[in-house]
Amino acid sequence: MANNLYTKSNYSLVIYDINKSSLEKFTSLHSATISQKPIYYANSPADVAKRASVVITMLPSSPHVKDVYLGKDGLIEGLDEQNFFIDSSTIDQSVSKNVANQIIGNGARQVDAPVSGGVVGAEAATLTFMVGASTEADFLRSKPYLEYMGKNIVRCGGLGTGQVAKICNNMLLAISMIGVSEAMNLGIQLGIDPQLMANILNTSSGRCWSSDTYNPCPGIMPNVPSSKDYEGGFGNALIAKDMRLAVNAANDIQATIILGAVAQQIYNVLSKSPGYEKKDFSSIYKWLNEKNGKK
Amino acid sequence: MANNLYTKSNYSLVIYDINKSSLEKFTSLHSATISQKPIYYANSPADVAKRASVVITMLPSSPHVKDVYLGKDGLIEGLDEQNFFIDSSTIDQSVSKNVANQIIGNGARQVDAPVSGGVVGAEAATLTFMVGASTEADFLRSKPYLEYMGKNIVRCGGLGTGQVAKICNNMLLAISMIGVSEAMNLGIQLGIDPQLMANILNTSSGRCWSSDTYNPCPGIMPNVPSSKDYEGGFGNALIAKDMRLAVNAANDIQATIILGAVAQQIYNVLSKSPGYEKKDFSSIYKWLNEKNGKK
Amino acid sequence: MANNLYTKSNYSLVIYDINKSSLEKFTSLHSATISQKPIYYANSPADVAKRASVVITMLPSSPHVKDVYLGKDGLIEGLDEQNFFIDSSTIDQSVSKNVANQIIGNGARQVDAPVSGGVVGAEAATLTFMVGASTEADFLRSKPYLEYMGKNIVRCGGLGTGQVAKICNNMLLAISMIGVSEAMNLGIQLGIDPQLMANILNTSSGRCWSSDTYNPCPGIMPNVPSSKDYEGGFGNALIAKDMRLAVNAANDIQATIILGAVAQQIYNVLSKSPGYEKKDFSSIYKWLNEKNGKK
Amino acid sequence: MANNLYTKSNYSLVIYDINKSSLEKFTSLHSATISQKPIYYANSPADVAKRASVVITMLPSSPHVKDVYLGKDGLIEGLDEQNFFIDSSTIDQSVSKNVANQIIGNGARQVDAPVSGGVVGAEAATLTFMVGASTEADFLRSKPYLEYMGKNIVRCGGLGTGQVAKICNNMLLAISMIGVSEAMNLGIQLGIDPQLMANILNTSSGRCWSSDTYNPCPGIMPNVPSSKDYEGGFGNALIAKDMRLAVNAANDIQATIILGAVAQQIYNVLSKSPGYEKKDFSSIYKWLNEKNGKK
Repeated sequence: MANNLYTKSNYSLVIYDINKSSLEKFTSLHSATISQKPIYYANSPADVAKRASVVITMLPSSPHVKDVYLGKDGLIEGLDEQNFFIDSSTIDQSVSKNVANQIIGNGARQVDAPVSGGVVGAEAATLTFMVGASTEADFLRSKPYLEYMGKNIVRCGGLGTGQVAKICNNMLLAISMIGVSEAMNLGIQLGIDPQLMANILNTSSGRCWSSDTYNPCPGIMPNVPSSKDYEGGFGNALIAKDMRLAVNAANDIQATIILGAVAQQIYNVLSKSPGYEKKDFSSIYKWLNEKNGKK
Repeated sequence: MANNLYTKSNYSLVIYDINKSSLEKFTSLHSATISQKPIYYANSPADVAKRASVVITMLPSSPHVKDVYLGKDGLIEGLDEQNFFIDSSTIDQSVSKNVANQIIGNGARQVDAPVSGGVVGAEAATLTFMVGASTEADFLRSKPYLEYMGKNIVRCGGLGTGQVAKICNNMLLAISMIGVSEAMNLGIQLGIDPQLMANILNTSSGRCWSSDTYNPCPGIMPNVPSSKDYEGGFGNALIAKDMRLAVNAANDIQATIILGAVAQQIYNVLSKSPGYEKKDFSSIYKWLNEKNGKK
Repeated sequence: MANNLYTKSNYSLVIYDINKSSLEKFTSLHSATISQKPIYYANSPADVAKRASVVITMLPSSPHVKDVYLGKDGLIEGLDEQNFFIDSSTIDQSVSKNVANQIIGNGARQVDAPVSGGVVGAEAATLTFMVGASTEADFLRSKPYLEYMGKNIVRCGGLGTGQVAKICNNMLLAISMIGVSEAMNLGIQLGIDPQLMANILNTSSGRCWSSDTYNPCPGIMPNVPSSKDYEGGFGNALIAKDMRLAVNAANDIQATIILGAVAQQIYNVLSKSPGYEKKDFSSIYKWLNEKNGKK
Repeated sequence: MANNLYTKSNYSLVIYDINKSSLEKFTSLHSATISQKPIYYANSPADVAKRASVVITMLPSSPHVKDVYLGKDGLIEGLDEQNFFIDSSTIDQSVSKNVANQIIGNGARQVDAPVSGGVVGAEAATLTFMVGASTEADFLRSKPYLEYMGKNIVRCGGLGTGQVAKICNNMLLAISMIGVSEAMNLGIQLGIDPQLMANILNTSSGRCWSSDTYNPCPGIMPNVPSSKDYEGGFGNALIAKDMRLAVNAANDIQATIILGAVAQQIYNVLSKSPGYEKKDFSSIYKWLNEKNGKK
């Protein structure tokens, strides 16, 4: 994402990571252009906020976001009214909303803009950004920056709704993928040819992205993870994390998500099963398949 | 289905139903043409088999099929080598296979050809028939008859695979519909506009037939049951029945269907909940929606 | 069971098994007494019915029972009005009722009497028999025979209710065992001492047989399978079978069993997971425990 | 709880509630003794901490506890090294631990001591307190106060383990109660007498507190909520809340609780179903029972 932003825009960058070697790796990649478009190292999040007006963050979890935005030496300590923050982390919608409200309360502006599309989309700048913004102006302000990195930039509503959109979609995705895997496995075990089974689903009311674009049964589609021993793609640990966020969000408002809750447990199991920790989330098919047979 | 078969073909019909008024209603509908193309009443299934070479059956459950085919005065008592049976009932795949094998063992031929497409599809002759046939010849023999009543006639494999295809698709359908309902409800409760929520799913990896063709949230799509108070469509009791067949089939071979098993229970509950017994299966959205709100 | 019946009663036995070496093994065990109390080999189930008035059967599944009772050379071919049949198999309650009704329709009497208590209970004659009998007289007639093999002989109601009682109890048992395992594992992972965690449950409203008599966490109780690497006891494949019977029974009458359905799937998975196929059903604790830890 | 503490001890009380009428109601109850043992009203939590050395809190949820302990005018603003805090709220174990660590970091001492036993236990002083204490000394310091209000005072381990013990027990309780209800309902629908069904479970491996002490089927036991139209007892909304805490705790450490997750959803549904919001949690039996019958 940073590569695309730097390469395709005219902006200089101020970068920060707790792992300094990431910064150096990034800089050395761009040594040819660095004299025209400088890349600066910041000392802390606060330092980033002081030196850059637009700040984009991408962090692994809710506590990290709270820490980087609101903690000691956090962005909040360096901000002024010029600052605009775009948080692309996928985190709890309640935390996302809360942090943004505090930043806004301190005079700057912020949107949440979680992303989908995976490593491939990040490299090809074809990501989808789902943006939660308290005003249309904030959304429009975020758009040009996000367009360097992605293809679809959608406003989902007020603060936190970017998170909501992402986890709702991914909850449905997890449910569909498990559903397709159960249906394909059952049909094949009962004597239907795998390719025919996929065709039947794809031309009937069972049709879904997980069956027609990302089929989990090896050999149905050539370029998806299931045909490459479930390497690459969207890992079980990542979807397990998104499912936890979905369950948290539902519990915050006491909404009922029965299949969502079961799917969360299934991906929690899968993400900790030997041989599955690092596999694509369509490997649920393989897991089910290994449990076939009257024994 | 019988209307289309009679009207569009050159065949005379021999008809039988335990409810004689159904026969009379059918005959009176066709009083204009009955002199050129007679409609005969049979006295029993056995009598049908004696008087018609091709026999099409459509029955509500496994015990009915066993009874009509193999019971006293059943088809088996009237058959000879000329008979060809097409069973369009949706029943247990093991029973379907078993009955067909006994009929074939007695010298006639049989295929299973369950149907999807609902009442609307039956009237418009746009049904899909999923055919299980022990030989390609049997499939080809069934095809012209089924084409009077449907649009897609697919061979799914050997005997019983028509049943398998149908219940696997419908199991995935049930799972998807519940998943879409949970995702739409959660997103809307957390502040996303319903139409936008549907758009996000439909352009993302959560996309499926239940979201883009049959959305369960009222007002998203004009001509689906959710926009007509869940009237018409595919009733909760019918999908609950198909889910029981799916669970039976999985248990016959000890296949694992975790979300399928939970979805079966959900539709069992829905089909017995006051106000939901006769509603379309997308009414799961309404059921979830009524349980929102911190209380 | 046959050992206890032969040793403790005055009866001679007529025995039959499709595996002839079982018969020989049984006879050689009792060579000392065989001259006073003969043991005869029968040629078929029908032969057993002809030569013995009271017949006790113990078979692995519904199709076996149908075959042995109603099939070619089955018990039904050898019976007369003197015959009394006690079926101790654990099978589908609908099949059990059906077979018994046919036997009774042919003039003999029958009860279902499935058993719980395991291999240990069988050897020690401490089994529980749950008897379904169409009359109290039938129950009383079965009782003295069952008392040679078990300790508690309970009439549960009409035909098939022995099966019902057993599967309802075992369904609850499966649910409780998974529940105890989830609660113990969660508590221990969150810092509570295992023995203390068990004590808390056992003196609170979570108390159950699975926590206070058969605790699934190794080291809590000395003589249960969990403390012997889950060897012995009640195997995952057996409880998975009983859970299938419970789901079948519920689906026959369209009763709702949500946790029962999920528990069935869990034991289906466990009975096919490498290293768990032959372990005691309390090994669900180990399975959960192996999936702990943030990864 | 406050009544027992005041009546049975020699202590004066300093009391605070945001609802002033609760305070007046309490005082008027004790007007006879108030001259010997004064009851003082505090103006805020901070004021309580200044005027009382031992402070007992009982609050409905995690945000309330954070607010009362750490917020403006909170306990933290009035504390000194003499203060000892006992929090009997049932809240997130992570929040409980966190708040206590901040209090301890400010020089006072704190334990968590959630309670079980219901309104009846509170009145009769037969409650169980599950205490999480960072030292044995803290536990021993809490004990005499808790003994005025309860019967069993158990140390569960370090800070937060009182919460852990309570939610693990209640998660198992919820699972068992649903399991008993499913088993009882299935057995009765299949022809077993209700009392007999309960007896079978209670003398078999399905035995649990929910079957032998609090049976959910009306008429089995005289003095439990199920025999009083599910009035009184432990409400569906309360167990739904405890189940959310259990799911939160499991997700914090990524532990797997499959039946726990489903049970949480079931009680979320029940707590929002018309007619069930205020009923005892054993009313899950009634809910299942209303969904019986082939329709």
